[in-house]
Amino acid sequence: MEDKGILCIGLVCLDIISVVDKYPEEDSDRRCLSQRWQRGGNASNSCTVLALLGARCSFMGSIAPGYLADFTLESLRTYDIDVSNVVTRNGCSFPVAVVITNVTSGSRTILNANRNLPDVCEEDFHRVDLTQYKWIHWEGRNADEQVKMIRRVEDYNRTCVPEERITISVEIEKEREILYQLFPYGDVVFVSKDVARHFGFNSAREAVVGLYPRVKKGAYLICPWAEQGADALGPDGNVIHSAAFPPENIVDTLGAGDTFNASVIYALSEGQSMQEALTFGCQIAGKKCGVQGYDGIV
Amino acid sequence: MEDKGILCIGLVCLDIISVVDKYPEEDSDRRCLSQRWQRGGNASNSCTVLALLGARCSFMGSIAPGYLADFTLESLRTYDIDVSNVVTRNGCSFPVAVVITNVTSGSRTILNANRNLPDVCEEDFHRVDLTQYKWIHWEGRNADEQVKMIRRVEDYNRTCVPEERITISVEIEKEREILYQLFPYGDVVFVSKDVARHFGFNSAREAVVGLYPRVKKGAYLICPWAEQGADALGPDGNVIHSAAFPPENIVDTLGAGDTFNASVIYALSEGQSMQEALTFGCQIAGKKCGVQGYDGIV
Repeated sequence: MEDKGILCIGLVCLDIISVVDKYPEEDSDRRCLSQRWQRGGNASNSCTVLALLGARCSFMGSIAPGYLADFTLESLRTYDIDVSNVVTRNGCSFPVAVVITNVTSGSRTILNANRNLPDVCEEDFHRVDLTQYKWIHWEGRNADEQVKMIRRVEDYNRTCVPEERITISVEIEKEREILYQLFPYGDVVFVSKDVARHFGFNSAREAVVGLYPRVKKGAYLICPWAEQGADALGPDGNVIHSAAFPPENIVDTLGAGDTFNASVIYALSEGQSMQEALTFGCQIAGKKCGVQGYDGIV
Repeated sequence: MEDKGILCIGLVCLDIISVVDKYPEEDSDRRCLSQRWQRGGNASNSCTVLALLGARCSFMGSIAPGYLADFTLESLRTYDIDVSNVVTRNGCSFPVAVVITNVTSGSRTILNANRNLPDVCEEDFHRVDLTQYKWIHWEGRNADEQVKMIRRVEDYNRTCVPEERITISVEIEKEREILYQLFPYGDVVFVSKDVARHFGFNSAREAVVGLYPRVKKGAYLICPWAEQGADALGPDGNVIHSAAFPPENIVDTLGAGDTFNASVIYALSEGQSMQEALTFGCQIAGKKCGVQGYDGIV
């Protein structure tokens, strides 16, 4: 058990980040405070945080070969994140996100490109050696394929003794109909404030109660709500809450949600209670908002 | 004479362009219509337009070696722009501009990075073989050094028969005090609407009349004013005007000013009158606003 790792499946992209102290007006031509290139993507960011917390972790996602792929792989390796499950697709373009982070408000404005790079699919996932992992996390994307991958893990789990079973978590972050089929597939389900709002809920508590009928029996549903902290609901029917831990100055909220998810996963995978994990998630996500990037979070 | 070229001195950078149909709200996370990498920088853009118009032209500017430099040099070569005057500086970072172009309004919002790459200086310019050029254009930047370069050309011109002399043009685009010393140094001086406004002028006509005392004897002062066309004033004291030629749909105004400058320079260098050149400049700049990038302008 000790040696098993955490696998995160989803997007890796390049974030081209311009740091400003005032959000640019349309049609202006201004100098920004600084600019940096940073590996991004929810699953890739969560790997960064898991690695910084000390977890053995692996990233699985697809890349298009070239300079940007080299930049990205080097960054993953720098954090000791295993890249043996990365799938290279020729003839595609590497996904790039343009990000404007405002140090005055902490806001992050993201412009994603339309991408022609297919996500990893069931076929790719068949090559993953499941005996290496104690936890597999899916960033909800190509959910039809992701459901098939999860079913493979469920089949595998049925062949294991309980302590060898892989915990399955999914993140439903974007308001896309296709992703909602993932609700009944995680032992731990993260649902974003945006998706909760889309369903008509106005707080994390409302969201976990209202969406709980969608998750599978015994699962935990978790909903972070920015400066209002996060709530979770499990099979015992008690809503658990943690307040937020905002830093003195909020400078960069890019990846705060990915940081929360990774910290919760880490704490749970280390055997902590949901209350402890939720509080830890809010603490680390709060720290993240006080620094540029991730390196100062632990 | 026929074989001599046009040299443009100034910035080359990478423009990372996100095309949207609605300017992004702060803190949003959206997909853009498309994203592309394009060689940018005023002088570099003007070279592109000159090359497309059929002029023999050369770009002079500094670059930091690496992947982005390779991308940029390849683009210059693709347009048959001579790069033998490009100066490579080690240990610097390549300048990148993040651009959001809005196809609905035609606006272009630019975020430049602080850069540590020194512009070309007098010393670099000493290696330029002046006998190769009939026209040299400076994008106003490190004006103290640029004045020294221009003086070298003036000295050279004094040794030439009139038809071998190099025409000198300068562009004063940014509202920076240091650039205003360039006014008396060009045979042709381009001053932007932004700078004209900074001096308190509310039209191109007002600007060329009001700023004309700053240029040298015999020079032309030209001021483009977006959808109101452009005005020019020369030694005869008559203000010349051209209306704008807006395309049916304005989709991308990034580099419209650089296109105008290049087209005016091209027309004048081919012996056309200032009225013809001004009209040609407005026509080509108008065409440019109707297409993404430059390839559809001729």
